[in-house]
Parts: sequence; structure tokens; C-alpha cells
Amino acid sequence: MSKHDNHREDVVGRANVEDTPELLAYYSELERFKAGALWTVANKIEPWQPKSQSEPVVWRYRELREHVLRSVQLVTPEKAGRRVIYLNNPGRTDVAAAVGWIYGGLQVMNPGEVASAHRHSASAIRFIIEGTGAYTVVDGHKMTLGANDFVLTPNGTWHEHGVEASGSPCIWQDGLDIPFVNAMEANFYEVHPDLRQAVGYQVDDMTKTWGNPGLRPMGEQWTKGYSPMFKYEWAPTYESLLKYAACTEGSPFDGVLMEYVNPVTNGPVMQTLGASMQMLRPGEHARAHRHTGSGLYHVAKGEGYSIIDGKRYDWREHDIFCVPSWSWHEHVNGSDRDDACLFCLSDLPVMRALGLYREQAFVDNGGIQPLV
Amino acid sequence: MSKHDNHREDVVGRANVEDTPELLAYYSELERFKAGALWTVANKIEPWQPKSQSEPVVWRYRELREHVLRSVQLVTPEKAGRRVIYLNNPGRTDVAAAVGWIYGGLQVMNPGEVASAHRHSASAIRFIIEGTGAYTVVDGHKMTLGANDFVLTPNGTWHEHGVEASGSPCIWQDGLDIPFVNAMEANFYEVHPDLRQAVGYQVDDMTKTWGNPGLRPMGEQWTKGYSPMFKYEWAPTYESLLKYAACTEGSPFDGVLMEYVNPVTNGPVMQTLGASMQMLRPGEHARAHRHTGSGLYHVAKGEGYSIIDGKRYDWREHDIFCVPSWSWHEHVNGSDRDDACLFCLSDLPVMRALGLYREQAFVDNGGIQPLV
Amino acid sequence: MSKHDNHREDVVGRANVEDTPELLAYYSELERFKAGALWTVANKIEPWQPKSQSEPVVWRYRELREHVLRSVQLVTPEKAGRRVIYLNNPGRTDVAAAVGWIYGGLQVMNPGEVASAHRHSASAIRFIIEGTGAYTVVDGHKMTLGANDFVLTPNGTWHEHGVEASGSPCIWQDGLDIPFVNAMEANFYEVHPDLRQAVGYQVDDMTKTWGNPGLRPMGEQWTKGYSPMFKYEWAPTYESLLKYAACTEGSPFDGVLMEYVNPVTNGPVMQTLGASMQMLRPGEHARAHRHTGSGLYHVAKGEGYSIIDGKRYDWREHDIFCVPSWSWHEHVNGSDRDDACLFCLSDLPVMRALGLYREQAFVDNGGIQPLV
Amino acid sequence: MSKHDNHREDVVGRANVEDTPELLAYYSELERFKAGALWTVANKIEPWQPKSQSEPVVWRYRELREHVLRSVQLVTPEKAGRRVIYLNNPGRTDVAAAVGWIYGGLQVMNPGEVASAHRHSASAIRFIIEGTGAYTVVDGHKMTLGANDFVLTPNGTWHEHGVEASGSPCIWQDGLDIPFVNAMEANFYEVHPDLRQAVGYQVDDMTKTWGNPGLRPMGEQWTKGYSPMFKYEWAPTYESLLKYAACTEGSPFDGVLMEYVNPVTNGPVMQTLGASMQMLRPGEHARAHRHTGSGLYHVAKGEGYSIIDGKRYDWREHDIFCVPSWSWHEHVNGSDRDDACLFCLSDLPVMRALGLYREQAFVDNGGIQPLV
Repeated sequence: MSKHDNHREDVVGRANVEDTPELLAYYSELERFKAGALWTVANKIEPWQPKSQSEPVVWRYRELREHVLRSVQLVTPEKAGRRVIYLNNPGRTDVAAAVGWIYGGLQVMNPGEVASAHRHSASAIRFIIEGTGAYTVVDGHKMTLGANDFVLTPNGTWHEHGVEASGSPCIWQDGLDIPFVNAMEANFYEVHPDLRQAVGYQVDDMTKTWGNPGLRPMGEQWTKGYSPMFKYEWAPTYESLLKYAACTEGSPFDGVLMEYVNPVTNGPVMQTLGASMQMLRPGEHARAHRHTGSGLYHVAKGEGYSIIDGKRYDWREHDIFCVPSWSWHEHVNGSDRDDACLFCLSDLPVMRALGLYREQAFVDNGGIQPLV
Repeated sequence: MSKHDNHREDVVGRANVEDTPELLAYYSELERFKAGALWTVANKIEPWQPKSQSEPVVWRYRELREHVLRSVQLVTPEKAGRRVIYLNNPGRTDVAAAVGWIYGGLQVMNPGEVASAHRHSASAIRFIIEGTGAYTVVDGHKMTLGANDFVLTPNGTWHEHGVEASGSPCIWQDGLDIPFVNAMEANFYEVHPDLRQAVGYQVDDMTKTWGNPGLRPMGEQWTKGYSPMFKYEWAPTYESLLKYAACTEGSPFDGVLMEYVNPVTNGPVMQTLGASMQMLRPGEHARAHRHTGSGLYHVAKGEGYSIIDGKRYDWREHDIFCVPSWSWHEHVNGSDRDDACLFCLSDLPVMRALGLYREQAFVDNGGIQPLV
Repeated sequence: MSKHDNHREDVVGRANVEDTPELLAYYSELERFKAGALWTVANKIEPWQPKSQSEPVVWRYRELREHVLRSVQLVTPEKAGRRVIYLNNPGRTDVAAAVGWIYGGLQVMNPGEVASAHRHSASAIRFIIEGTGAYTVVDGHKMTLGANDFVLTPNGTWHEHGVEASGSPCIWQDGLDIPFVNAMEANFYEVHPDLRQAVGYQVDDMTKTWGNPGLRPMGEQWTKGYSPMFKYEWAPTYESLLKYAACTEGSPFDGVLMEYVNPVTNGPVMQTLGASMQMLRPGEHARAHRHTGSGLYHVAKGEGYSIIDGKRYDWREHDIFCVPSWSWHEHVNGSDRDDACLFCLSDLPVMRALGLYREQAFVDNGGIQPLV
Repeated sequence: MSKHDNHREDVVGRANVEDTPELLAYYSELERFKAGALWTVANKIEPWQPKSQSEPVVWRYRELREHVLRSVQLVTPEKAGRRVIYLNNPGRTDVAAAVGWIYGGLQVMNPGEVASAHRHSASAIRFIIEGTGAYTVVDGHKMTLGANDFVLTPNGTWHEHGVEASGSPCIWQDGLDIPFVNAMEANFYEVHPDLRQAVGYQVDDMTKTWGNPGLRPMGEQWTKGYSPMFKYEWAPTYESLLKYAACTEGSPFDGVLMEYVNPVTNGPVMQTLGASMQMLRPGEHARAHRHTGSGLYHVAKGEGYSIIDGKRYDWREHDIFCVPSWSWHEHVNGSDRDDACLFCLSDLPVMRALGLYREQAFVDNGGIQPLV
């Protein structure tokens, strides 16, 4: 491939110019002016459809857990900042992303530990996997956390994670938009001047105040770009899925799917990251579709598999897997008796806010992808 | 007072013209052209502040209940349409309003009865007082109802109320904006062609689908002007008040006050009628304030009194009372051990949507009105 | 008609109860408790469709003009406040409305005069009919005004009208929602402590800043409920109508119709009052329709007639006429050569904000009402 | 630099772990599971502040113009698709961007030529530099274009550019978000099945219908994510700047700055690209600031220079220059008699929609950057 690879296509309306000595000289001349000839790159930069740089991956919890725990032996919190194993998609190692522009990691913390407080322009969720006594402080609001709960630490908020001395070692999944905010050249980072925040409110106040069905606290104002309901708990989520399941047929592609929302706007929990929980009913084999946007799934309950671009990926509780943008995917509950629940962190709020969301159903073969 | 009462005021910037023979002749001449001289009415139509036509009233449930029940003996549902005792504010008998532009009534229905389905431009809530087996069907969605639950029958929706044959006699409070919609010359009424609606969904589906904290059903669309969560139940409301009470100081004027909202917009349940529930904590004596907008209160729990424009009004469970626009009011829990809960139906959504809301704290005497 | 007129209707689903001695006794008993039996008033308060209390009226400028001018001789500005002839709809004299809940008046002011500054919860527009040198100051912003221009003096803004000493006697039409705001028991009135406002900005700054097509002033914030473009001028309005007319077929009911908008929201100029200008092209006979909401029209240009509920009302330049809510109406340009332009002040923003707008086309007779 | 460069920083709260044989073995082990240790990359992916990959560049029109025209000799439209010289920022050659994620190019077309119609998920503006007879068709709407006018071809719209046979050779600047939409893995491309669109409306109808100050076409609906005012013309823009300049002090950083807006939302013209025009008054030397987001400037009028990160860049009419994200920049009008106008295409709508906008004033030295 020459320097002036011109990505020719023999299709009406597409560039198809062959190199000539005169053109090559012209291209060199343009370089002097920090310019180029569009027809040499047009077909490359205007693809017919998206082809993600990310690969589908399953990260198995039973494999990673021991390595996560081992980090406690290997590095101190003081030196490491945080003891985290991050998910490194083979197609995205340049930006340390799990999929697309989303970062994912598994963090461990021992009882009595607390990370230093900081803030950044990247937004995060912390999804608890195991252990007791975990808590997070966000802008002075302390939230307690149990398994399958998650907490928001949005863009610009001071935050610190800890585990009560009375608790047990905790492991959780971090999910952030660090790669995206870096790509947008908009990331700032600050260490809290005191390294610790004072807790200024009743524990769990933001969820008790804002997380009530069909009720808002009169007189309380909230205009920030993210949800005031900092913590979303598993128990009411699962109960909501059961209630909704009782009166919906569900999505052909996603079973019983609910999106976590900012109760003030009914929009996504944060402007750059969305979260959802879906229930695959016993025996459910959802149909395949694809859409723009990247998803990082966490198996909250049950076991089964997903078929992504024609290849099967098995998963069970606390495994993590990803679906790249515009990849065909279908989810299958492996049990005929129990439901399976998938938590998904995605950049769908970005795709929707910018008009870039597009979706397509897999119509052949009854909506089931043939395995390749 | 002459026909040309000119409402004179001796204040700079206000009209203060005395009648003369020449002016009286001029006024008569103007009448021929369906016109008048503004200065004769200016001070009347531009008052310094609102003076409501409504009076504060308490309707005591123990007094009205027997009359409500007696209506069952006196008229048939076929002839009466509905057996309802309406609340007739002495200052608003011309429009049959309980307060301001809000209609209120107490309706009774026996087991096995069902009212004929209809729809109108007026919006309504139905707040259950006593009895079992009550239900309402709204646009094909059936909602079951218990004490202190309420259901919406918004502008333009087909609706019918009934009591299951297995239930007991039910009494509930109706609240509508009939007087307002009539005043706006925008009321339409239709009887359902079949007199009954077919139920097309799972029972209580709208609340199960939309009434989940921090979760929305992905893929479901709702763009109507009213809440899709047709029923609001007492149990989760009371639980929400307790949770919120644990982390708020509350409003000085209203204790722990939550507004029922349309979960899609976080705005009022309907465009013309709002609803709230407030908890007065044991021993709480809230401070006085006044605001534009009319409120029709229903005592959902406990006992106490309110001071309205300097006069005390005692109330206990299931009593109804009203606070006219721009009337000073303060609420007092009569118990030092138990909380008291007030449900309030109001036109605050109208005042807010149109920029007419104004509020003032009573600053003298520590915020407590002297009794007159 | 007895005191207990019960508005009986022999229709399924409607009330149809005949008086009996027992019932009459019951009704009297209910009165003691400030209550009544719904079935005695149900059919009255739930009409099948709106029947406006307002009558169609044309106020002819050539008739009223001399009376307006005569007021200058009869009363001083100091005593009268303002010299205004108000439009008194025969069906709305109780609230001094021109139509529905809208007040209209014709005001005159001589060169060098200025009215004292005040503010109120009612919102107003001032539409200039004749004269030079008119100006209005709104919250310190001075706007100059020529024929067919109008200025907003929204809810809560300090405002004063004047005519420059170098000008000529000016007559304009006032339009306000005074009756509505009074009905909502939300009207407040204040005289400016200095009786005059200081002008704190460049003349006409609000229109120069906000009234630019497809451009907003970067960095300027505006979150109030009304348009920051305080003045709307005739010349760009007429030019806009001509441009739009070149590329639209127009509305069958209204010809080429444009709504004046708040440029920040693309919504109505004020929350309670809307304004529009429509062009009837030469020879245009628009079709009849009816809708909820009241309209007060001012003939800005040309001549013609409107048929309202089957009766013809002729109009020419600067005449004012009204169309009551839910009245059939069609507008006809009387000229085959010139266009005619109608300015309309209405409460459509209220109807729309509250979900009360409804519209119906007249389908018989080719959309033309037979004259009655 | 080893493979496991761990970006150590000796700051509390930052990662600072030295490599050990044990750790290096651990890192290798993690790679097997498509994972890594966060502390090795944390300081790299969480920078203290943005450092753009783009460089400031001025592309001088007098230099590029001849090369643009020469492309007409070198390639045919059929083979090249479009004859465009694209701006290739030295820091962004991997994505063919002019700055950040924004593509820019100079396109030429001869009279009678027309490009084949296509559509893509990327959004574009076409800003005319010279020539007569240019037009663009967007979803069947034909817009005529003169110097300093621009037209939108938003995400998903069919579009084609042409020059009337009666016109002259036209050169314009293209600006697109191609690099961004590619990075989001959301770009789709289609050639129009007929290669040409039928024009279905009056010429320039979208601007005539929607581009009117303070007026909207009643009854026309528009809910798409981009402005219905497809064309923005230079003449009314310049007139608007003059009007606004008469009543504002202007921004200390940008002089008289107006943003082109979607008249329906008052928001940006498209969801991913914003446009503004600013006037530097005679002699104006604006103060320096920096903000997130990338800007591609086109000198619409006048001459002067900008200081970007301490280095001076001169510009005159039709030159193009860029300001990378978070770069200090100040603009200076080179004339004491004439104003200078800068058109700017940017991704500020993305930064704002996602909560990533941040801004800082240069406070030292009176807001003037020292030259480096």
C-alpha cells in the first residue's frame, strides 16, 4: 500500500482516481500546505456502514477474581491510587477501553480502606459485585452499597470510595467514559485538597429524597445534567422488573428492559453514560438486532449466552461482556426455570443526544443468527 | 351606588374622576357602541391584590357520610347518573365549586354497580375514602383502588367507575376542574357508545409499568399531557414520606411535602390539576404563608387544625377543607405522637404554567397568625 | 324555574331525576352542610359542548375614534390615570371583557404626555393605530412605536407609555388578560415608587438584540416566561408574510398565518396571551372552522368581512372584532387586488398549555357557512 | 520507555508504582485475560487538563486557491466524486481532520456541474467563498447561495451541490463532523438511487418560511434534530451584527458574537456542529480565554490576527484557521476603520449537550498573552 493509498471504489458517486505521476506530484505539493486531495481518502472516511474497532469479549469473573484479589498483595493503595484490573479490549488498547469509548475495571478494597477524594470530567458508575460495607461519598452525600447496587459519580463531582471497617473485602466494577472524554479533549482531574470529604447529609439521602415512584420532593430544585438519585438499588430494580414483566410482552430483542433514569428528566442517569437492566424470562431466546452505540454488560443474575456477530459467548453471574457498535447481537437465557438479568452500561445517551442512534432488526432465519 | 360607580381612589396613578352631567352623558353614549370609559372601572378590575370569592370551609365527613349513603335510597344510578353530594362553597354557588374553580364531591357506589362510561374535557381524580372492591377503567386500563389511593381520569379519556360484586359499599371523593374548563368555554361531554369499555390490558398495568423509582420502561412512548401512571397508591406514598422525612428538615410552611408527578415529565399529574401529600410530624405547627392558587384538602391520616385568614378550622380523618387563593394558612398536627397527612388537590399547575404563582410568608408573630 | 332546577335530560348517562317532596327536603338538608346533590346540576355543569357567553361584535374605528379623542377634553390624565375607551362585550359586562377573558381598549395620548409607571400581574400588548412619537418603557428598556407595531408589557414588568413632545396625538389598542387574571384570583397592582422609570439601555435594544432571523446573541441569557423581543414591528412582519406566502398554500381557514413568538422558545409571546398576523390574499375566501379559545382581531390592512356563527360582520382598516370560543368563523378579503391583514390577540397559549385546545372544520357547503 | 510504561507521578492521589519482576509477571498474566493494571496507565488516561492533539494552523486562501482550481484540470467529477482539497491538521492526519474531530475542505465546481446526490450520518455546512450560481438541494428543497452564505446538509438528508450553467466557477468551504461520526462508529453512506433529486418546493422555501424574526409559520411542524432554516444568508447576518453591536458592549473575548440557531429550538443549527459569526469592531483587541471544544474559523470580512497559545497567526479575507480545544486564543482586528467578521464552525453543541464545556479567562497581563 503506497503512501497515497486512495481507497478506490468502482461505484458511481464514489472516488475512483488512479495515481499518475502528475497527481502524485500534486499530492506532495498539497502536503506543503497541510492539505490533501479528498478523493484519495473519501471512500475511507465515508464508509458504507460502521465497522467497530472493538472486538466482542467475555471477561469471566471466576478467572479475573483471583487476579483482582492478588493486587491487594502486590501494591498499596497509597502507591497505586486504586487497585484496579482494567478491561483491555484488543481493538482498543490505544485508549484502554473495554469497548468503544467506555472504560471498565474491577476494583478491590479491604475493610477500613478509603480511597483519596478526587474529581474529573469523566463520569462513572460503580457496580457492586461482592462484599459488605462498601460506600461512596459524592459531593458530601454518603451512599451505602450492596451487591448489584450501583452509584453514580458524575462529571465534576468530588467522590471517594471506601469500605467500612466492619465490612468484608469488596469487589466492584467501575465503568467510566474516560476514553471518550479524553478523545473530546475535555478531561480535567483534581485531587481533593483535604483528600477526604466531610459527609454533610443523612446517609443515602439522595435516593431517599429522589427515588420515590411518582413523587417528587416539593421545593427541592435540581438542574444539573445528571440524576440526583445517586444510588440505584438492586432490590427495587428487581421488583420493578417483575411488575413490568407482568404487563408487557417485552421487547423482541431485549426481553423485559428498563432504563435507569434521572427522575427529574426521565432521561439517562448521566449525559454521557446510560444504564439499563433487562430480564430474560425463563427459556427466553431474544431475537438479534444491531444498533449504533457500545454496550458493556454485567451479568447480575443467572446464566446464558449471547450471540454476537455470529459467534456464541457464554456467560454466568458477574461475568462481563461487550457488544461493539453495529454488531448483531441476541441474548439467550440458559435456564428454563429462572430468569437472568443483564446490567448494561452504554453510550446510548451520547448517540441519542447527537442524533446518531440507528437500529436494525435481523430479519432472516426468524431473527436468529446462524453461527459462523 | 349609581350605575356608573366609578370606584374612585385618591392615590397617584389610580382613577379618581367624579361624575358630572357631561360625563354621565358621555358614558351613555359609549354604551351605544358597546364601550365604556376605563376610568370608571379601572380600580375595580386592577385590584391591589387578590381577594378570593371563595370562603374557607370544612366539610366534616361524620356529618356528610350519612347523607351520601342516603342518596342510595333516594335515587337510582340510572336516573341520577351518579349518586354524588357536591361541595358547594358559599362564595361559588354560581359555578358549583368547592373552592376557586375546583369541583369536589362525595360519591357512593354499591357492590356490583358500575357507572356508564363517558368522557369530557374536564380532568378528574377519584380519591378513595372507604370500602373495598372499587375500580376505575381509563381508556381500557383497569385500576383497582383501596383507601387513600387515587386514580386519574384525565381530559378526554373514556372512564367509568365501579365496585366489584365481591366488594363493599365504597365512598370516594371526586375532584375535577369542571368549573375552570367551563369558564374557559372548552368543555365537551360524550357518553361512550357502548356505555361500557372493554378492558384491554393487565389490571393495574399503567402503575406497574410507569410507577417504578428511577426506572422507565425502555421503548414505551408517552407524550400525552397527563401522567401515564393512572393510579397512585397510599402505601408507597406513605413509605416515601417516611423516607424523605428522614433526610429533610421539611418546609417551614408545609412540613414534609411531596408532589405527585407525571414520571415522564416530573411535572404535575395533569395539566390543570395537581396533587400533593404532606406529612405534619408529631407536634408540628407549620408557619403561615399565602400564595395564589386554590387548594382542596383531604385529611388522609390523623387530626389537627388549620388557621386560615386568622380563623381556626379543626379537622380529622377524611374531613375535607379548602384554602382560597391568597389566603393566609398554617397547618397544625393535633397529636404529639402520631403524624398527620393531608392530601391536597389544587390548580397550582395552572398558576405555574401561566406565570401566575406568587407566594408570601407571614413574617409577624413568629409566623403564627393571631386568631381573629 | 324553581330554585332546584335540575336540568333534566332524557339521555342515557345523563341526570334525569324529578323533584319529589322527599328530595326537596333532602336538598334543603344538604344546603345546611354547604353541599348539594350533583344530579340537580350535572347536566348544566357538564355541557355537551361549549356555548360562549360572549357575542360577536365589530367595533368600528370610524365610530369610536371621535369618542376616544373627546376623552382628552373630558378628563385629565392625572384624574383618569389613562384616557381609555374599553370594549364592553354585551355578554361579558360583568368582567369588562371584549371577548372571553380578554380586555380591549382604545387609548389616546397627546404629545409630551406620559402615563405614570406601574406594574400588575396582568399581561398586555399595545398595538399602535395612528400618530407619531409613541414609546413605551418596559423594565428600563425604551421602545419606539409606529403604526401596526406592538409592544409587550408582560406580567410583573414596570411599564409606562408616552408620546414624545415632537410627536402627534397617538391612538392605540390595548389588549390585556385582566379579566382572566382576576378570575384566577392572581392579580396584583403596584404604582412605581418614582412614577417614572430611568431608561437604562439603548433605545429599542431588546428587539435589536433578540429580533434577528436565525441568530441569537451569544452569551445573553433569557429564562423569563415572556419574549425578550419586547417590540414587534410591522415592516418586517409584512415582509415575512410576503416571503412565506411565496412558498405556502396557506391554511384553508386562515390564509397565510404567522404567529408572533418568543424567539427563545418559539412559543407564544407571553404565557397567557398570543398574537398572530394573517394575510388574506386578494380574493381569498377562507373556509369556516371553530376552535376553543377567544380571539380579538384588529384589521391591520385592507377590508373585508367575517362570517361568525352564520352572520356577516364587515370590517375595514383599524376596526376591531371578536370571535368567541367555539364559534364558527370564516374570513373574507373584500378586495380582488389587495391583500388584507388581520392581527389577532388571543388566549390560545392558555388553551394549548392546559390541553384545552380543540378544533373542528365546517364540512358542509364546501366549508362556507350559510347566512342565518 | 518500556512496554509497561507506568506514567508515574509523585503526587498524593496519583499512581506511582515502580516496576518489579513480580509486577511485570503479573502484568503479563493480565494480558492473557485481556486486562491490565490500572495504575500503569491511570496517570496517562486521567490527565490534569486537556492537551489537544491538533495544532493551530492558518490555511491561506491566496495559497490554496490555485491548487483548488487546478484540481479541475487534474480529475473529473465522475472519477473524483468531488474536487476537494481537504485541510489536514498535522496532529490529526490519522483521521483527516482540520481540527479536533472536524473535517474541512475547499471545493470547486464549474458552471453546469452538479455532484451526485447522496446522504450520510455526518452533518455538513457549505460556506460559499466565491462565484455565482451555486445551489444545493436538501431533501428536495433547493437553496441558492451567494458569498458568505452557508447551507446545512444535516445528518441523514439527501443532498447535492451544483452550479447553474449561467453561473461562474464557485469555490466554497465544506465543514463536516466526519471524523467524529466515524469515531463514534455511527457513519452510514448511501448514493441516491436516481443520482439526482427532484426539486419539490419553491426555491429557498425553508429560509423564507422559517427565517423570519419573531414569527413562526403557524401550523407548520418541525421536530427534527436540525434547523429547518437550511440556508443562512450573509446580508441579514451582517445587518443583525450591526444592530446588536449598537446595543451591546460585546464579549470581552469575542467582540460582537452571534450564534446561528435552529429557530424552532433556539439551539444549534445541527446537533453535532454549531456555527457563529462574530464582529471585531475597528481597532478591537479582544482578551484571551480558552475553552473545551474545537473551532474552525473562516475570515468572512476584514483582516487581523489571532494569538493562539502565545503565537501570532495573521489572517485576511477567506483565510481559514483553527483553534484547538483548551488553547488560549485572542482575536485582533487589524484595522482601525473597518470591522472584521469571523465565521466559526465548531463542536460546541457536542460539548454543551454532554456537559463537557469548560471555559477559563486569561487573567494575567490584562488578558493579553505574551508572545512566545
